[in-house]
Amino acid sequence: MDLNFVIHNTDPSSKARVGQFTTAHGVIETPAFMPVGTQATIKAMDPAEVWDLGYRLILANTYHLFLRPGHKTIQRLGGLQKFMAWPGAILTDSGGFQLFSLKGLCQVSDDGVQFASHLDGARTMLTPELCVQIQEDMGVDIVMALDQMAIPGDGPEQTRLALERTTRWAERCLNARRRDDAALFGIVQGGFDPALRQQSAEQLVPLGFDGYAIGGLSVGETKLTMRAMIQATEPYLPTDKPRYLMGVGTPDDLVVATSMGVDMFDCVMPTRNARNGSVFTSVGKLNIRNAAHTEDESPLDPECRCSTCQRFSRAYLRHLFMAGEILAMRLLTMHNLAFYAKRIEMIKDAINNGSLGAWALQLANEMDKESESVITSQP
Amino acid sequence: MDLNFVIHNTDPSSKARVGQFTTAHGVIETPAFMPVGTQATIKAMDPAEVWDLGYRLILANTYHLFLRPGHKTIQRLGGLQKFMAWPGAILTDSGGFQLFSLKGLCQVSDDGVQFASHLDGARTMLTPELCVQIQEDMGVDIVMALDQMAIPGDGPEQTRLALERTTRWAERCLNARRRDDAALFGIVQGGFDPALRQQSAEQLVPLGFDGYAIGGLSVGETKLTMRAMIQATEPYLPTDKPRYLMGVGTPDDLVVATSMGVDMFDCVMPTRNARNGSVFTSVGKLNIRNAAHTEDESPLDPECRCSTCQRFSRAYLRHLFMAGEILAMRLLTMHNLAFYAKRIEMIKDAINNGSLGAWALQLANEMDKESESVITSQP
Repeated sequence: MDLNFVIHNTDPSSKARVGQFTTAHGVIETPAFMPVGTQATIKAMDPAEVWDLGYRLILANTYHLFLRPGHKTIQRLGGLQKFMAWPGAILTDSGGFQLFSLKGLCQVSDDGVQFASHLDGARTMLTPELCVQIQEDMGVDIVMALDQMAIPGDGPEQTRLALERTTRWAERCLNARRRDDAALFGIVQGGFDPALRQQSAEQLVPLGFDGYAIGGLSVGETKLTMRAMIQATEPYLPTDKPRYLMGVGTPDDLVVATSMGVDMFDCVMPTRNARNGSVFTSVGKLNIRNAAHTEDESPLDPECRCSTCQRFSRAYLRHLFMAGEILAMRLLTMHNLAFYAKRIEMIKDAINNGSLGAWALQLANEMDKESESVITSQP
Repeated sequence: MDLNFVIHNTDPSSKARVGQFTTAHGVIETPAFMPVGTQATIKAMDPAEVWDLGYRLILANTYHLFLRPGHKTIQRLGGLQKFMAWPGAILTDSGGFQLFSLKGLCQVSDDGVQFASHLDGARTMLTPELCVQIQEDMGVDIVMALDQMAIPGDGPEQTRLALERTTRWAERCLNARRRDDAALFGIVQGGFDPALRQQSAEQLVPLGFDGYAIGGLSVGETKLTMRAMIQATEPYLPTDKPRYLMGVGTPDDLVVATSMGVDMFDCVMPTRNARNGSVFTSVGKLNIRNAAHTEDESPLDPECRCSTCQRFSRAYLRHLFMAGEILAMRLLTMHNLAFYAKRIEMIKDAINNGSLGAWALQLANEMDKESESVITSQP
């Protein structure tokens, strides 16, 4: 289904745009960050809390839900939205990324990906057709095509073969569609080679997807490489469809990638970091385990208006975390997701007042200095 | 401080009463069940959720909070209520029960209990005076005196020595009080011997506590023994002070013990069971892991109005539990605490309409049949 993507405003100082698209489960404003709900729950959060933070689109995982509880079970129970009591829209990733990270547990051929379940070892062949069917059966709003990503270390030939297979699979995904209330996104691959990224985009766009993802990034490359790959891809994507940078990223990555024309993001960082005690604040990251917080009465971030910061001190949060209490995970996740929601609002404001380009440039420079210092400090 | 315990109504068919008492942090209606917040959090719950369920008094643990984060830290941070953002009242148990369950890690003398921290092995002497000071420093509403419980298997002489030491410690606790905004409860001991229970109560009551606890129960004895010990104690407790049955119990225990004149309870059962997948419903217990729930669209309990039952199916809750998701713990705990809150309301209604005695009698008979069948089914 066409998402009726409308651009409200563009940034004169960059390629950023503010817009919206419309799913069967509501209007999504862009730029949009999707919290990750791998197993049909944003870890540690109640769906009502995610909604109250302003999120209207979340990501769930085809591979995990196919294995447990199974897409047919979810279908019989009325679809994923009803199953998890999420009133908003859902995008499911295709499982490609998970499968290729199961090195040794899967075999790829033109047919699809043969893999063994990480739960019970049961072998399944995930074809592009099955991948679309699983997502459609779950009733999600945005279906991702099955893709093959280059694995870091792949040579140019392997990278080219993977992107060409991604194109063939993309066509098969388009042909496998049965629902007209779900959008289908293609995924650009091509490793870290700008020419292959261009080639992938040029092969996918004529097929006519409802949106385009940039895949295969955020796998350990430098920030400079990530930007170069976005830059190599973006000009070949249609401006009138949403662009989705998969698996990215830090709050600053959102600013920089938005300035380069990206509209959608997902990342486990706000939720996973929270469960490790790592917290985003307006003056940088902090780890709640730090003994400096033992008797610190201040909130995580004095500028934050989330329900954690309005009620709890760093001292209490540190106590909960050190004691292994579930409430620590809840309250830190709440805060980090509030931080990301606010970051998206700040990005929209910066686009609307024409200041995003300068902000992004400054952050990109800082990132490069940081990664340079990492490189030069190595023996 | 006197709690100004007022009895609104008594049950003509039993010894039950409906009443209230007043703490520095609000009025507490009785009978009252206290959710257990060992480490300054009701496990998996936000304090606002506990409040919204109707709870106004919770229990926290002197021993655990003394070790981590330390009572002086809590005091410097403005007291336990502020620390954990709990707007209601707090009772702290004295740590006696925890210490005696650390067999081999503690040594008891008339001075107090010498113990090694389960966290870092540091040795501390917990005296009656220190025990009161810790609780007063944390600013709690109800302080429990340090007691020595008989350990199941203790002979009559050991049991008598423990209760007599409990009396001596109780006097020292009364003399150690410094705050006039906290109540102090004495704890009746005496093992499973009715005469020793009477003796303990008769020694404690003249000392003049603000309330009386029945301790040393719910340690593996039969329901019949538990009732016998309540029955042996209750006539020797003043009617105008609250009576608190420590560590009890099942929803049915609350009915039976209330009918015998008990006003207050605490138990980890609703919260701990939830984390093990065990759920209380109006038609008995269920375990959410049961495969029968895999595609069950019904709520945990169709009669329950909690936020879990209003939104989520057994199928989803089972999925979350099997996937090890934190939200499972949250939602099941929410439901079990709602079940206990409703049980307390049902008990109050039964007292007010004079039907509690019959209800309690029926449950007590069922309990005894059950324990008989357990005994006779053993080889």
